[in-house]
Amino acid sequence: MPTLQNDLFLRACRRQHVERTPVWMMRQAGRYLPEYRAVRAKSDFLTMVRTPELAAEVTIQPVDLIGVDAAILFSDILVIPEAMGMHLVMEEARGPRFPMPVRSAEQVDALPVVDPDRDLRYVMDAASLVKRHLQGRVPLIGFSGAPWTLAAYMVEGGGTKNFSAIKEMMLDEPATLMALLEKLAVSVRHYLEAQIAAGVDAVQIFDTWGGILAPDHFRKFSLDWIADIVGRMNRGGVPVIVFSKGIHGTLKELSTIGADVVGVDWTVDLAEARELVGDRVALQGNLDPAYLYASPERIRQEVGAVLKKYGDGPGHIFNLGHGILPDVPPDHARAMVRAVGELSPAYHRRG
Amino acid sequence: MPTLQNDLFLRACRRQHVERTPVWMMRQAGRYLPEYRAVRAKSDFLTMVRTPELAAEVTIQPVDLIGVDAAILFSDILVIPEAMGMHLVMEEARGPRFPMPVRSAEQVDALPVVDPDRDLRYVMDAASLVKRHLQGRVPLIGFSGAPWTLAAYMVEGGGTKNFSAIKEMMLDEPATLMALLEKLAVSVRHYLEAQIAAGVDAVQIFDTWGGILAPDHFRKFSLDWIADIVGRMNRGGVPVIVFSKGIHGTLKELSTIGADVVGVDWTVDLAEARELVGDRVALQGNLDPAYLYASPERIRQEVGAVLKKYGDGPGHIFNLGHGILPDVPPDHARAMVRAVGELSPAYHRRG
Repeated sequence: MPTLQNDLFLRACRRQHVERTPVWMMRQAGRYLPEYRAVRAKSDFLTMVRTPELAAEVTIQPVDLIGVDAAILFSDILVIPEAMGMHLVMEEARGPRFPMPVRSAEQVDALPVVDPDRDLRYVMDAASLVKRHLQGRVPLIGFSGAPWTLAAYMVEGGGTKNFSAIKEMMLDEPATLMALLEKLAVSVRHYLEAQIAAGVDAVQIFDTWGGILAPDHFRKFSLDWIADIVGRMNRGGVPVIVFSKGIHGTLKELSTIGADVVGVDWTVDLAEARELVGDRVALQGNLDPAYLYASPERIRQEVGAVLKKYGDGPGHIFNLGHGILPDVPPDHARAMVRAVGELSPAYHRRG
Repeated sequence: MPTLQNDLFLRACRRQHVERTPVWMMRQAGRYLPEYRAVRAKSDFLTMVRTPELAAEVTIQPVDLIGVDAAILFSDILVIPEAMGMHLVMEEARGPRFPMPVRSAEQVDALPVVDPDRDLRYVMDAASLVKRHLQGRVPLIGFSGAPWTLAAYMVEGGGTKNFSAIKEMMLDEPATLMALLEKLAVSVRHYLEAQIAAGVDAVQIFDTWGGILAPDHFRKFSLDWIADIVGRMNRGGVPVIVFSKGIHGTLKELSTIGADVVGVDWTVDLAEARELVGDRVALQGNLDPAYLYASPERIRQEVGAVLKKYGDGPGHIFNLGHGILPDVPPDHARAMVRAVGELSPAYHRRG
């Protein structure tokens, strides 16, 4: 593999000096880009995920089109439950669905642990292909859903407002839920290790639904399993990013489990977050994704506000506080990236 | 008016000694009750809201059927925008909608400030009727939406995941949004004052959507306006409860604006919240509403956990961390109320 030409992202993950703050966007390979929609028009979402050439193509699009400092592999967190044998249906209007959700101890027992090299080979192939195409221009990030978030989808079976099924399981059948989370934790760990072996330069664990839990239950049913993965994982020296959305009260604890970077959503004050985590981890975030609906001038102002909140010195990776929204004008994403490039060097002058 | 026979709720609001922790539930006059659904089967939601006899009937149902320590007036936060002349459509499946949302400075200019005694007389009539029917059994709580939350509905026009329209207005047309918020703040204040004049024993300001904002914007566009209302309101000695959902980082500030009680959602650790607010306010909350899906035995355990988090002494009003969900079995709500009654006296022994 060629040496990285732009390693700002990796240096920031390691809290090393950078000349400017690196920037990428969660869900940057996505529907807001007309070039993505052109690929999507010719094949459905899951075909794109499973076809390394297509996945690689859309993975690289935002590097070319938006100018981000890292690529993130185009895929979906639900490939793991699917690899466990669950039938996954993707409908744009209704979101992803598992028509046969997991609800009983017997169903959990019957689920296999994922062997990523056998069951998710297409992901590793896509990662290798992206690395080859990128030729070291920027690093590639691999990812997985966190066990709790994956379990929520598997037990609920689809979109939900109240998470009634998984919360009922959590309270009335905690051993069943724990057995499911353990299988997921082993699967996620092996999956991330396989991605690292395939050449990704960093990995992120997404816990989209961590924030629906009361803090004590978040610790037990989500955080502890993320910590288990991070603690046991053979990382081969690549940085690990953890992102639980909506968990203000447990952010500090998330910074103590051995990850290199903690993602922060936009409802957290980044200055407070930095104070909470000290020098244990770098922070990634946290512009409100909806701000990309505003004018480029206002976006620039809000980028400035986020950079100022983090303040001087290393350890900040600029990102949105959650995924980029599908109807944002690409020019607005470019305005954000440009503003980070222009406004951030002031925070990285040495001495 | 007869003297209150059960004033536990009011004493807890004032942080006075109680023999046990009082309990009520947000949205307790609602669809989970078959007796409510029987009334609803005969008239649509808005007719129920506008007919004092029907509103009074369902307001009192949970006092009789569940045994809560306070009644809350059956109504809807959207009566204010409706009284400003916005056409409101209520569809069970899609939720409330304003087919003609407010998007421009001209539209905001054209909106009148609400005169509650003229425009919302039916609410005050319902409040008086409830007071008469209750005969002092328990206190009656009046309420309003917070300006930010009302503005979000008025600008978005209905259910939304991303709040793109109001956030765009907030960034690109802040003066327009501020003009709207000011009209709403005056309307809400007069509305709450009219409810107090009609006899309610406490009022609550609901800020359902406060938590979608970054902290600095929450302060400016939501908190400051709630503070304005609480600061100027002629309360006639009745306690004021403020509840912003999902605002962990600004909970402490919410406790400093002169309200008597701060509501806390279930994602906040109640022990931490108590430490944050000190002896400035009482706290109301915070069982995860989804826990009422679990078995009565588990509900009892979780009630015990919430009571223990708050700990000894006065100033706790037991509630859910958000509204009761429409498909919860009434027996589970009763199990919660019973558990509070049985487990809480241990936390109120004097000396």
